[in-house]
Amino acid sequence: MTELFTNELKDKILSHKRGSIGIAQINPIAGDIEYNAKKVLKYINLAQNIGLDLVVFPELTLMGYPIEDTIDRYPIIVEDNIKWLKEIAKITTKTCAIYFEPSPVVGCQSADTLCNFDESKIENCPKTIIINGIKYGISICEDCWNNKEFFNDNILYSKDPIQELSEEEPDIFINCSASTTRAKKEQLKYSMLSFISKKYKTPLVYVNQVGAIDNNSFDGSSKVFDSDGKLIARAKSFEEQFLIVNPIKNIGEIYPLTNGPEKTLAEVKEYTLEYDSDLERTYKTILQGIRDYFNKTGFEKAVIGLSGGLDSSVCAVLLADALGKDNVFGISMPSVITSSESKNDARNLVQNLGINFLEAPIKNVVDNIDKTLKEIFKKVETKWNNRFEDSFTMDNIQARSRAIFLWGISNEFSKTLPIATSDKSELYMGYATINGDMSGGFAPIADVTKTKLFALAKWLNENRIQKNVIPQSIINKKPGAELSINPKTEKPLTAEDALMPYEFLDEIIWRIENKKENYYDMLNTKFLYEEHKNLPKEQKIEWLDKFYGKMSNALYKWSILPPSVIVDSHSINKYDYKQPITSSNINYKGISEIEISEKIKKINV
Amino acid sequence: MTELFTNELKDKILSHKRGSIGIAQINPIAGDIEYNAKKVLKYINLAQNIGLDLVVFPELTLMGYPIEDTIDRYPIIVEDNIKWLKEIAKITTKTCAIYFEPSPVVGCQSADTLCNFDESKIENCPKTIIINGIKYGISICEDCWNNKEFFNDNILYSKDPIQELSEEEPDIFINCSASTTRAKKEQLKYSMLSFISKKYKTPLVYVNQVGAIDNNSFDGSSKVFDSDGKLIARAKSFEEQFLIVNPIKNIGEIYPLTNGPEKTLAEVKEYTLEYDSDLERTYKTILQGIRDYFNKTGFEKAVIGLSGGLDSSVCAVLLADALGKDNVFGISMPSVITSSESKNDARNLVQNLGINFLEAPIKNVVDNIDKTLKEIFKKVETKWNNRFEDSFTMDNIQARSRAIFLWGISNEFSKTLPIATSDKSELYMGYATINGDMSGGFAPIADVTKTKLFALAKWLNENRIQKNVIPQSIINKKPGAELSINPKTEKPLTAEDALMPYEFLDEIIWRIENKKENYYDMLNTKFLYEEHKNLPKEQKIEWLDKFYGKMSNALYKWSILPPSVIVDSHSINKYDYKQPITSSNINYKGISEIEISEKIKKINV
Repeated sequence: MTELFTNELKDKILSHKRGSIGIAQINPIAGDIEYNAKKVLKYINLAQNIGLDLVVFPELTLMGYPIEDTIDRYPIIVEDNIKWLKEIAKITTKTCAIYFEPSPVVGCQSADTLCNFDESKIENCPKTIIINGIKYGISICEDCWNNKEFFNDNILYSKDPIQELSEEEPDIFINCSASTTRAKKEQLKYSMLSFISKKYKTPLVYVNQVGAIDNNSFDGSSKVFDSDGKLIARAKSFEEQFLIVNPIKNIGEIYPLTNGPEKTLAEVKEYTLEYDSDLERTYKTILQGIRDYFNKTGFEKAVIGLSGGLDSSVCAVLLADALGKDNVFGISMPSVITSSESKNDARNLVQNLGINFLEAPIKNVVDNIDKTLKEIFKKVETKWNNRFEDSFTMDNIQARSRAIFLWGISNEFSKTLPIATSDKSELYMGYATINGDMSGGFAPIADVTKTKLFALAKWLNENRIQKNVIPQSIINKKPGAELSINPKTEKPLTAEDALMPYEFLDEIIWRIENKKENYYDMLNTKFLYEEHKNLPKEQKIEWLDKFYGKMSNALYKWSILPPSVIVDSHSINKYDYKQPITSSNINYKGISEIEISEKIKKINV
Repeated sequence: MTELFTNELKDKILSHKRGSIGIAQINPIAGDIEYNAKKVLKYINLAQNIGLDLVVFPELTLMGYPIEDTIDRYPIIVEDNIKWLKEIAKITTKTCAIYFEPSPVVGCQSADTLCNFDESKIENCPKTIIINGIKYGISICEDCWNNKEFFNDNILYSKDPIQELSEEEPDIFINCSASTTRAKKEQLKYSMLSFISKKYKTPLVYVNQVGAIDNNSFDGSSKVFDSDGKLIARAKSFEEQFLIVNPIKNIGEIYPLTNGPEKTLAEVKEYTLEYDSDLERTYKTILQGIRDYFNKTGFEKAVIGLSGGLDSSVCAVLLADALGKDNVFGISMPSVITSSESKNDARNLVQNLGINFLEAPIKNVVDNIDKTLKEIFKKVETKWNNRFEDSFTMDNIQARSRAIFLWGISNEFSKTLPIATSDKSELYMGYATINGDMSGGFAPIADVTKTKLFALAKWLNENRIQKNVIPQSIINKKPGAELSINPKTEKPLTAEDALMPYEFLDEIIWRIENKKENYYDMLNTKFLYEEHKNLPKEQKIEWLDKFYGKMSNALYKWSILPPSVIVDSHSINKYDYKQPITSSNINYKGISEIEISEKIKKINV
């Protein structure tokens, strides 16, 4: 165990023993109760050795949050959870450890019922708990998200448990959370928790889970506010930590946040290409996402196709940092139209990073598949007359052949996962090949838009200990899959040729996700792109229509996207956003009453 | 439009005009408000022409149920929904059409507020609505699922809206639903609705959506009960229909259900291989699932790999029936170990069915990939020492090469989807190849276990107009992917060699899904398999352990399963069952208090 706190801090806290609290910011594994319980025991023992009054854990610590529907197929874990809880409770004589079970009563739960499970004791008893003379008002996660003033009446539930707790005038509020990291969410949580402690003139201890569970990445950053709403302690971000505090005496330590949230505690309301304030958080969120997905599923190594393009290059750096460079194998699989520059770029990246590397020409395999498929197409044509004049079929064969090699390596070598390199902008547009580049065991950058990815690449070059691992030529070149030639330019088709400028595309995504704008909202307001480029209205309309058309056809791809890590405030991750695939015919432009009335008249004639 | 009702019935209903109701059992498209509104208008006009008092539609008719998070990315549809509703309301002067908007008030909503949107009118006003002298108590879907007596206190919500409505003594209950078909659910709904009408001595009209939206298949089967709880009318299953009834006068028509539910209105509590009572419903559920997924996404044709095995053969029949035989292309892609019998079986099936067919040898492509991959593996081995001694890599190459061909055809020919043929038993065991047989645009039998699939094949042979299309040899042979040779038997490895007898496997699935049993529940009770086969306890333990081990490793595959159609009461469909992939280390056997206590002691020493 690393050093947890200075002796000075420890002495200070113990000299004011009443109200001394240990915040156990832990990284659980969903469903692995024994693993989680052992972590809990470790910190209870530590707290008891120090002589703290209380040790607090995140929400649903023994099960691991989120457990989702798991108990439907493993009902045994409900019983096991209670058994472990009861056995642990037996050793918490000196320090009180607080956990929660589902309460049959809406609202707050009395101290008497903790670790007791006697339903009859729950109703009409005090909602707060007194330990060593200090009265605690304890709540769970979203219990805290119901302050009408703070949210302008736009609240989650009809009850405000904090308000109810405050009626008993607790000395300290405790909030046990499992709250994911999202863009700008840290600022919101900070403001909200500060507001609550100030409003009720009561210190507030917020303990948050750390670590990733599948698509959800939790940042920790547990914090304590004094009765004026001032931050007096904060745990590290993205690290397991045991933090000791005394909110009564304003004693604690403030560990620095990742760069961004510290600087920008106010929410930005306008779209910007200045991603700097969020890049460290983005990097750490994805790193934790990769590391915990691999660790918790028992995988150790990753194999990734390196095209010399931005997506795969950034993924390779993230994988090397998350898993260690020896655990990453980069495979260059050039096709006939892959430029020598791209091949060199991939090689240079690999040399800089120090990951494993091999080059596997896919030409023969692709030619062979092409040849066989062309014969198949001829036969199909004898029965069906719906063959496209132009198609992407042969481009896709390249992407799928590469994926066959990556999955082959994953099948042949133990504990090895192939990586899907699709980014968020491409996925929005369905600009990713099924069973090709969008296929893999994990998709690290599925929630990072292309413009942010460029910024992240630059940030990595500047901020990693080893500078400039990503060759500048990779950052400079226009993104494109190098699957086919643009007949106009006679160069490989770039993604922007096929789609639209990424700056414009990413702003559409941002407006839909963050401002809930519709088609005409966007058509009638100025994009950042329009500040410095002339954009005729017809072109803007064409791009907006293309966006909505492609997005509705991408729904199926979203539904089969591999596990990824959610980074932005909103994502297309299927556990984050659900839309029927069969709803692809939505009228995204809307309709006026007059048009409706005319349509109805026509029907009724 | 087909004939909707006999003139005799129409006359009868109109002679008792008060309380005459049209039940519009429609098939909406999620998000396509104009499409849905036109259907609504058609039936309102029809009802007005007939002179009915009221026409009722399923839950969330204009939006289409389920709309899920769609409004987050398309906020415009919320406004459009209201606009269409208001314009439609203008023409409902003679017949009252009932729809619902979200109410800000928990509980029931007054008649005055319908199509009115004046929040101030909602509170403290009557909860029922009077039309032409008849008082209606209207509820939506799960409002009906809260009767404490019927559910033995195990209810969904703390309020019972039907109870509240009953206090105003309505003449008729109306329930507008969008309720999916599931195994045994029809029986439950029938009993519940009958119970309610009898309990309150009030006729009940239940209108249900029909059609499939992605994974959800709605069966229609709208029904009417008299005040004694007796069924007096029922609409067709799996068909759009306009049914007219008069519950006050006990007038209506009872269309037959699919075979099963009619016969078995009591729930079966024991596992059985007698699937007969549920096969017609299963067939129609899947047919509707395929047809609506294709129709609503704009696809028309399907391409499917035919192995001569059970899964692909049953899928081919279902596709031919759902899309028309000319719209289905079967592709035989034999490998070196594919038996001549399997090739013949595939050809015979195709001839019987009359679908399109071609044979595409995959040998060259597989050999070429094999060769290239072996060279790649040698290079990887110079850096990594984790190569498996035995692997399924080369077997998977065959499955993935086939999928490349199917996806290639789908890319080259318009409106064409490839089909994933994995069944439920295989998916539970992860016995399906990523980017191979489990990849496709749609997975028709992903919620049908293997033993049920055998029964379905026999049923199809006996009950389709054209008998015996599936060659008996396909039904007789042991299932297996024919990807590799079993060294013990020197024949192709069968699935049961690799897993366990399907009869045993499917009973585990059934017990977990329907009885929420755990490991020891199953170990300590007799399986159907044990009734007629000697099963040593060690063998049973081995199979149970194998099941849990393989299931936890299959979670990733479940997460990337293509859209399918949910058939059983529970499924592994990712929108139906959610479990963190990283929760694979669950102790499925459970643990005793003593063991826990000992583990804790060890830590604390």
